[in-house]
Amino acid sequence: MGTRDEFEGIAEVAGGGLPESKVKADSTALMIIDMQYVDADRNHGLGLEGQKRGWTDDMEYYFSRLETLVIPNVKSLLDACRETGIHAVHVRVMNLAGDSSDTSWRYRMFGIFVPPGHKDAEIIPELAPLPGEVVLSKTTSSVFMSTNADFVLRNMGVDTIIMTGVVTNNCVESSTRNATDIGYRVLLVDDACAAWTQEGHDYCLRHLDRNFAIVKTTEQVLEEIAAASKKPGVAAAVAH
Amino acid sequence: MGTRDEFEGIAEVAGGGLPESKVKADSTALMIIDMQYVDADRNHGLGLEGQKRGWTDDMEYYFSRLETLVIPNVKSLLDACRETGIHAVHVRVMNLAGDSSDTSWRYRMFGIFVPPGHKDAEIIPELAPLPGEVVLSKTTSSVFMSTNADFVLRNMGVDTIIMTGVVTNNCVESSTRNATDIGYRVLLVDDACAAWTQEGHDYCLRHLDRNFAIVKTTEQVLEEIAAASKKPGVAAAVAH
Amino acid sequence: MGTRDEFEGIAEVAGGGLPESKVKADSTALMIIDMQYVDADRNHGLGLEGQKRGWTDDMEYYFSRLETLVIPNVKSLLDACRETGIHAVHVRVMNLAGDSSDTSWRYRMFGIFVPPGHKDAEIIPELAPLPGEVVLSKTTSSVFMSTNADFVLRNMGVDTIIMTGVVTNNCVESSTRNATDIGYRVLLVDDACAAWTQEGHDYCLRHLDRNFAIVKTTEQVLEEIAAASKKPGVAAAVAH
Amino acid sequence: MGTRDEFEGIAEVAGGGLPESKVKADSTALMIIDMQYVDADRNHGLGLEGQKRGWTDDMEYYFSRLETLVIPNVKSLLDACRETGIHAVHVRVMNLAGDSSDTSWRYRMFGIFVPPGHKDAEIIPELAPLPGEVVLSKTTSSVFMSTNADFVLRNMGVDTIIMTGVVTNNCVESSTRNATDIGYRVLLVDDACAAWTQEGHDYCLRHLDRNFAIVKTTEQVLEEIAAASKKPGVAAAVAH
Repeated sequence: MGTRDEFEGIAEVAGGGLPESKVKADSTALMIIDMQYVDADRNHGLGLEGQKRGWTDDMEYYFSRLETLVIPNVKSLLDACRETGIHAVHVRVMNLAGDSSDTSWRYRMFGIFVPPGHKDAEIIPELAPLPGEVVLSKTTSSVFMSTNADFVLRNMGVDTIIMTGVVTNNCVESSTRNATDIGYRVLLVDDACAAWTQEGHDYCLRHLDRNFAIVKTTEQVLEEIAAASKKPGVAAAVAH
Repeated sequence: MGTRDEFEGIAEVAGGGLPESKVKADSTALMIIDMQYVDADRNHGLGLEGQKRGWTDDMEYYFSRLETLVIPNVKSLLDACRETGIHAVHVRVMNLAGDSSDTSWRYRMFGIFVPPGHKDAEIIPELAPLPGEVVLSKTTSSVFMSTNADFVLRNMGVDTIIMTGVVTNNCVESSTRNATDIGYRVLLVDDACAAWTQEGHDYCLRHLDRNFAIVKTTEQVLEEIAAASKKPGVAAAVAH
Repeated sequence: MGTRDEFEGIAEVAGGGLPESKVKADSTALMIIDMQYVDADRNHGLGLEGQKRGWTDDMEYYFSRLETLVIPNVKSLLDACRETGIHAVHVRVMNLAGDSSDTSWRYRMFGIFVPPGHKDAEIIPELAPLPGEVVLSKTTSSVFMSTNADFVLRNMGVDTIIMTGVVTNNCVESSTRNATDIGYRVLLVDDACAAWTQEGHDYCLRHLDRNFAIVKTTEQVLEEIAAASKKPGVAAAVAH
Repeated sequence: MGTRDEFEGIAEVAGGGLPESKVKADSTALMIIDMQYVDADRNHGLGLEGQKRGWTDDMEYYFSRLETLVIPNVKSLLDACRETGIHAVHVRVMNLAGDSSDTSWRYRMFGIFVPPGHKDAEIIPELAPLPGEVVLSKTTSSVFMSTNADFVLRNMGVDTIIMTGVVTNNCVESSTRNATDIGYRVLLVDDACAAWTQEGHDYCLRHLDRNFAIVKTTEQVLEEIAAASKKPGVAAAVAH
């Protein structure tokens, strides 16, 4: 091919791809994917399993990014949304049956069984849902394939999703692709997501940007939330 | 991170990922994604549009790969499946309303409108559906988000999909991720798919292999089809 | 129970049930269910099959109602919608595979196989779709269970459905129940639907009214379409 | 029409309708619909609201049937299934957001808001789920329109549903119609369901039988469960 090594075809040919999109106070939800013990804590679930297999060094990049960057950033976004009245939607891996019989085929093959009540199903304390916030439990990569996420978001009047969590090129990417296919505007927050490698994270964001999402930083989204919250209608709603 | 630069986390930690999977004559379908004028012919649709914009060199890799590798390989797979009695499912981009009012938001943003009857909606002659073969029309990246693909495949008794077509890291990847989430075993055929860049194609397959699909070559799948067709039950069915 | 023999519980207790709902020119679709040879013509499909079994008298009510009432009324609605720019969505029973392998379990049990190209799949001439009008093919009672109806209607901006066709307490009822569950306002047109018995038709409408739909007459809906078409925004759109 | 006043068309014409279907220990689930305070206890939710409006007599049939017939029968079925290892799937009306913002349009119109933690969301004590049993929360008439019921049941290997609960011609009927459209064999248990009127209950069962379900009595289903549990494979599984 030619000299433009970033050429990926569809977005370029199709008029530059998805348009700029912003947080709107009345129709935005913050979605937080899989920030739970099974995969977001180095001493539980996959982290613990990896340690036993001698992969501590391989996993250092991921857990370090979570602890120093992703968790604080998602927490900032969550705090800002709660203050502004933007809905938080927490997504986690969890099957519904105690015997895990409702687990998807793919998760069965991976040996990922996270029954209700198990520590692995618990969202990490920094990002724990408040009473009344929506929590969706899935056994698929995309939240839209095994939960009523679309129905819930549609009823809430949501058309824009601030997408965060893990793993960037697995569940976050699958959920982002589906969300945009359905018609949601996705703001994918670079420094509020993590993959197992920096290369995997970077490749994913480069590929999804303007193709399936608008990639932003936590700082940019916080500014948009602040701007959205200052609009009269919203201020009134929040005050009320 | 550590020294294993191919480490991607979930598949390694989770016992090596998806298991080997093979073509079974009674429960396999060949899925061919978007091999139509709008995006698989250099002189129509996106190809023509790209030419007008001076991107002929950028697109050379893609169209050359299609013409010399992908189209012949998909044709071989299609011929073998037809002989064996394995269902072919053709997927294309096409909206249903003549005024394109049913087009998804993402395709609207891309300016991709492919109404019924338009040349762009037509599957290229080499891979044209035979009367009686299923054709699904979509306006999303994943065929599962805007068609009844899952319902159709389930009723057909399909649990394994031979996945081919374009674009590897766009519609093929989105469809593959969803198929596996639902529970289908996906055989993703490397040399029967194409992306706009070799890098994008390679990255996608490396990331999906054992994670969302088992990556195979056309030759491997042709051998499996031949082996499957020799089983007595199938021979009888075909003879009948 | 008490003296109010029409008491059906939920609607009464819950504040009277669904609110009045009207045709809006920009967000309404006319849905026509199964007005095709397999079940809406006395000399084809089920009608012909019934004749062979000696049920001509049993079926007289149904086919007579179709010929003298339903077909003319649906035709009037279709004409009015076409003039006003309201989308018509034609629904029919048809499987997609030539060998009918994609037919649903229920239709298999009923022996209802309607492959593409078969006369039974054809919509009757009086109500034949114009080029560019949406046609959805289903093998289930509810159009929402085996087609992309919701995706299509949502992209079209539709929130209100004028529901017509056959059979009132089978496919029309199942589709109406699902449509309202999803969030569409359904105007169910009494004299533009038919069941195999008057009792079945009447019971269905009595039960669905204010519970899953607002029951109207063809004349009422025609008046609403006329009123909707006179609004400036629509007139402009139609003129344009 | 003719002399056979029970003639309803489709089932008769189509070879007699759905086939006989039986409980199979490995692939059956017991589904219990909406047996919760909001609608299955005369002193809470709709029952209490009706009392305030002076409809105590109107509602006597319904609550009396629940107390004397339906609750004991569902309890018997639940006990038998638990002993046999047949999965129980509890369905209830409940929205997920504390502010009820995710409630469907229809339930909004009815004023039915049942947030998590509210007494109305609680399943009545006689039928309370055991830890590990699946509980699905919906805001639609059909459980398949607002939950992941199909995904859960499919992963569990379920192809047959014993359908019970309330209200016969509302949520039970909508769920039954959808279940059968999807391909589940539904055993609809007459004396384990209730409608607000006997007429409504009877009409519904007469219309659905062989059309969307096989109607049975609690006693018949208990016998089938007992027979299924005696098969060696199951005995072993239960012993284990």
